[in-house]
Amino acid sequence: MDSVNASESETQQLTLDVEIESFFESTPPLKDSAGVQKKLHDFIKFNSSPPGCESGRRVVCVTCGGTTVPLEQRCVRYIDNFSSGHRGAASTEYFIKAGYAVVYLHRRETCQPYCRYLPEDPFLECFEFNKESSIQVQPSYSEAVRRAIGDHHAAVAEGRLLKIPFTTIFEYLQMLRIIAMSMKVLGSHAMFYLAAAVSDFYVPWKSLAEHKIQSASGSLDMQLAQVPKMLSVLRKEWAPLAFCISFKLETDSKILLEKADMALKKYKMHMVVANELLTRKEEVTIVTNNGNIPVHRDKTQPCSDVEQPLVELLVHKHSAYVDDSDT
Amino acid sequence: MDSVNASESETQQLTLDVEIESFFESTPPLKDSAGVQKKLHDFIKFNSSPPGCESGRRVVCVTCGGTTVPLEQRCVRYIDNFSSGHRGAASTEYFIKAGYAVVYLHRRETCQPYCRYLPEDPFLECFEFNKESSIQVQPSYSEAVRRAIGDHHAAVAEGRLLKIPFTTIFEYLQMLRIIAMSMKVLGSHAMFYLAAAVSDFYVPWKSLAEHKIQSASGSLDMQLAQVPKMLSVLRKEWAPLAFCISFKLETDSKILLEKADMALKKYKMHMVVANELLTRKEEVTIVTNNGNIPVHRDKTQPCSDVEQPLVELLVHKHSAYVDDSDT
Repeated sequence: MDSVNASESETQQLTLDVEIESFFESTPPLKDSAGVQKKLHDFIKFNSSPPGCESGRRVVCVTCGGTTVPLEQRCVRYIDNFSSGHRGAASTEYFIKAGYAVVYLHRRETCQPYCRYLPEDPFLECFEFNKESSIQVQPSYSEAVRRAIGDHHAAVAEGRLLKIPFTTIFEYLQMLRIIAMSMKVLGSHAMFYLAAAVSDFYVPWKSLAEHKIQSASGSLDMQLAQVPKMLSVLRKEWAPLAFCISFKLETDSKILLEKADMALKKYKMHMVVANELLTRKEEVTIVTNNGNIPVHRDKTQPCSDVEQPLVELLVHKHSAYVDDSDT
Repeated sequence: MDSVNASESETQQLTLDVEIESFFESTPPLKDSAGVQKKLHDFIKFNSSPPGCESGRRVVCVTCGGTTVPLEQRCVRYIDNFSSGHRGAASTEYFIKAGYAVVYLHRRETCQPYCRYLPEDPFLECFEFNKESSIQVQPSYSEAVRRAIGDHHAAVAEGRLLKIPFTTIFEYLQMLRIIAMSMKVLGSHAMFYLAAAVSDFYVPWKSLAEHKIQSASGSLDMQLAQVPKMLSVLRKEWAPLAFCISFKLETDSKILLEKADMALKKYKMHMVVANELLTRKEEVTIVTNNGNIPVHRDKTQPCSDVEQPLVELLVHKHSAYVDDSDT
């Protein structure tokens, strides 16, 4: 790199640092960051030498669901990112099956692990009172209910699943920073699997109108600022040794792989999972520095999903990464 | 009214008519409007002479939850209105208790009637497997679960509750029109209780970008158009004899009553329920042409809510309205 480029890159880094600092400074503080830190500390400590696994479990932080961007301080309106949370929930199940402990940083009220096979409103659709006035599961849902309640409780009881909810972009990025810094001690045994749909644009808290925006004046013009890209600071400062996977979602297949490749290089991710809105449940492409790996759902199986082969492959890559780091 | 004012008012009405027509014309059509119409027709017919109540039940359309405004056609981002749906869910229970049949036009996945006393994630928190591997309700939630599942099923089974979900502003307004037109036959026995948080601004479908908006270019400028005010057309054309209650939510108490009063006059509502974001669970004010009526939660009762006295009062006012119309 010659000196002109080096200085350009330094200037860019400096600008980003200032943007990130200003983002966190202007952000309303979390309600219970000490409580979250305590839970994370206990979770990571427990999984460092859980009963029957003296060498410790690897820990993955799975993020999922969309973040909201408030448009007023006393918030009535907000911008949201479409995301069912299905990818993160399914992947969490496979990570736990593969022996990981999972910090599940998820949008409040989105899909939960082990609950994918339930109907839209499981509480009202899965249960009924029988003639003796005791509750029973509707027979057609008995397997799905057993799986959801049984497997979910087991994962929590075994100390393998810690769920942390967020709603706004402000909460998400603050939580991610706390989690990453807590997981720093795990070195290469930590993984980040960043499937959340994070807002690209936001209105800085200080620029937000205090009250509900009035509609009397006709149309509404909104100016949104870009959310500073936190992926580079996650890699560089928050958890520099962790294995980092980010996601790139596009609706236009023509630009998808190119954008994923740009993200790989710009944020120094280990891998980027490229997915298109319409086909995201059927196939994804893992974009790496050594070429692209397509991953497909096994269509010969009726209840298969793309998360199973995706997580299997990533676990395998993470193992190689841990081995590399240890030598 | 002199001729200048008359012509001004005619021009305004003409402009609104054009805006409304253009809104519905440019809107993506509902997936199953014929199916919804059929369900509504059957529901209204059944409740016109249900078993044991030959004179027929009154029918109220309760709307609740926020509408979304897509920012892209293949939607990744959208603007949403904060609303838990709690007001509509609670009110539905009290309307059913008062003998009404309820068309519950609600935002998908928000609070459902009879489910208010459940924890945030009822499916995972209320149930457990016992030693015999059969499912049981956690004792602390047994009353809430019985109420939610038992009372909810009963209301549906008795043909008193028809639930119709929406997500976008496009779906909401099309559904509201279909419901209102179906309920027209009920004359003054129909009520509209419009508690949904409806977007004031939107991007017309044809102006929407097809693909996800790119963030590379820095900040984002958005221009949103005003959603045409449908309340006047609801009153004038869709269901001119129905008893109509709209809601006005503000975060600034200083302008709340004035705005509610403006809505009362402008849209010719029978009553407007004014509520402030922070105190909305404690008190509301019913704004009418004959003065304002404050309504408070009964604080001497631990589980009381403001919806109970509110609905009781509205049912009483509706009775007077029906009597007036019949004579």
